Amino acid sequence: MASSSELPIVDIHTHIYPPSYLSLLRSRTSVPYLLDLPDQSLPPRLIILPSDDDPSLPPESRGRPIDASYSSISEKLHFMQTHGIQTSVISLANPWLDFLSPADEPTKWATTINNELQHLCAQHSGKFYAFATLPLSAPPPTIVSEILRLQSLPYIKGIILGTSGLGPGLDDQNLTSIWAALQETQTLIFLHPHYGLPASVYGPRAAEYGHVLPLALGFPIETTIAFTRLFLSGVFDLFPRLMILIAHAGGTVPYLAGRIDSCVQHERQFPSSEETGRRGPRRGLGTVLRENVWLDAVVYSETSVKAAVEVVGGKERVLFGTDHPFFPPLGEGAERWASVETNLDAVRGCEGGAGMILGGNAVELLGLKPASDRMT
Amino acid sequence: MASSSELPIVDIHTHIYPPSYLSLLRSRTSVPYLLDLPDQSLPPRLIILPSDDDPSLPPESRGRPIDASYSSISEKLHFMQTHGIQTSVISLANPWLDFLSPADEPTKWATTINNELQHLCAQHSGKFYAFATLPLSAPPPTIVSEILRLQSLPYIKGIILGTSGLGPGLDDQNLTSIWAALQETQTLIFLHPHYGLPASVYGPRAAEYGHVLPLALGFPIETTIAFTRLFLSGVFDLFPRLMILIAHAGGTVPYLAGRIDSCVQHERQFPSSEETGRRGPRRGLGTVLRENVWLDAVVYSETSVKAAVEVVGGKERVLFGTDHPFFPPLGEGAERWASVETNLDAVRGCEGGAGMILGGNAVELLGLKPASDRMT
Repeated sequence: MASSSELPIVDIHTHIYPPSYLSLLRSRTSVPYLLDLPDQSLPPRLIILPSDDDPSLPPESRGRPIDASYSSISEKLHFMQTHGIQTSVISLANPWLDFLSPADEPTKWATTINNELQHLCAQHSGKFYAFATLPLSAPPPTIVSEILRLQSLPYIKGIILGTSGLGPGLDDQNLTSIWAALQETQTLIFLHPHYGLPASVYGPRAAEYGHVLPLALGFPIETTIAFTRLFLSGVFDLFPRLMILIAHAGGTVPYLAGRIDSCVQHERQFPSSEETGRRGPRRGLGTVLRENVWLDAVVYSETSVKAAVEVVGGKERVLFGTDHPFFPPLGEGAERWASVETNLDAVRGCEGGAGMILGGNAVELLGLKPASDRMT
Repeated sequence: MASSSELPIVDIHTHIYPPSYLSLLRSRTSVPYLLDLPDQSLPPRLIILPSDDDPSLPPESRGRPIDASYSSISEKLHFMQTHGIQTSVISLANPWLDFLSPADEPTKWATTINNELQHLCAQHSGKFYAFATLPLSAPPPTIVSEILRLQSLPYIKGIILGTSGLGPGLDDQNLTSIWAALQETQTLIFLHPHYGLPASVYGPRAAEYGHVLPLALGFPIETTIAFTRLFLSGVFDLFPRLMILIAHAGGTVPYLAGRIDSCVQHERQFPSSEETGRRGPRRGLGTVLRENVWLDAVVYSETSVKAAVEVVGGKERVLFGTDHPFFPPLGEGAERWASVETNLDAVRGCEGGAGMILGGNAVELLGLKPASDRMT
């Protein structure tokens, strides 16, 4: 196992609910909303899915508990120290702001949250950078304005984006001005799942398996479909300098890339280019993966990290992450998180590139200046 | 590129509609059914999806054409000769027999089709073996009888199975006697997708992309969900000698295996074993993948073949296939099929194991005696 103790470890995939976001959720009474419990010693519940919003359940059994690990900076710092992480690029956990209607002042909330993220990072210089959130229910020119405004917030290093875009998905033509602004500003898009798949696909026994099917499969599959639709829509032909970091090591895009390309080449509905003889978007999937895509390494498998590295054309395009605060230790008193250890081991199995993946790539790609102090 | 001209090439994933199956489809008037066109020089249409069954479309635009490549042995032999394939293990293409109601004599049809496959293989000794089909709408004891009867058909080397099982999926407890019979007879299960995903996941622009999203993503994702449900249900604890060959290189199971295992280990609903400290099925996913699972190499990517090999624990568990007659050449007059060449190249990139994957593994696993003649 290669030692990389001399190189910074940067966590590119780590979530937080800043105070303004929690107050937004707390102010709501329909999904998603935050439900404080009568016993204030218990953490509030996040009612995030319509199925969570079940008045027949006692409040303490609805949704999921949102303990301090979701919002506390000191808990985040402790977690980072535990795992030797110098710098975290924090992002809102889902559901972001998709749920706001245009009347809900999405722009006000987005600017408030983004300013708060900027301020929080500035208070802990070098420990934190952030991906901003966009007011997706606002009119596209307003979304574009927020993208441009983010340029003035030096700790904001990209945006987190779900798979639904303005509502109809990432192949929506109404996103054109937004892609244009993201390309023009060279803003990294962190593409992250939220909605999963229709519950019917998991079958009648799904509840017996807890959250395994939606978490293990629904999330990466949602991402895979969203990215493939984005690719097929030709967005990378129109915006060949878009930069997308795909969560969970690309969902399953790296494993299916050959099949996707083969299906595109065999699709009679797509004309074949006179120049290249190939069908589908002019910039083919292989090119897009090597030139527009970065992947996090949150895939819990050395085999998959290696496949991810091959598909995007090199170790410089894969970046370590933890998915904190999800997948915490289950046992009482466990200090180091097994989910993090698994991903660290997977990355360290990549001979010759572990240091780049663990932190060097994030520093280079985003222009980070990690805190030099070792918190020991 | 390693030459493997001295070793047999065996195609483990190649479909055919034998005459009795076509006559079954032709006898029906509801989906799925075969529609002969007034112009008999045109191939009949297979109306396989409810959405194909649109009387507002002219008959020649409904469903998909079923030309001779779907049923003709001479065309199959020509295809094999073109690509240097000595032996094909043929299987029905979907929809198999899932659509039959118990009143539709599923057992009669299954035995007829399986006998026909046996006969067809015997007529071309060493060129063809087959995976049989099961009468899944018959009562389980009848299905078990057919599994046992298959033991008397020497060219039948396993069964093809869709993801719906008896209807509710592969984690259905009513399948127990069937798994028991498949284990007892050491019958290889070729797990193959058919239904894909609910169309809603592909979004409002899906039609613009032809069949790309359902074929490239829907199929492997359907397989992934089905296999994961099977695993989570504990079937491999009950039947530790089940043998499953998963189509399309396991869907996306190899890439997601680490994530699936991590989610299982973090699922509070699963008790953790006092003995091992691990949660979920006693035989964990890694064990099942290395001991119960084989994968075809129909994944159009050297990176993915290598990942598949790693996840199942060695080159001896990955087997070449073509998916013939799907993904034919699009250009007029093309002799070799690009889809096959892509998969051949991907396998030949596996240094030291290409010959095993191309044919040696199938010979060993299924006890094949490939035709020794080189058809040149």
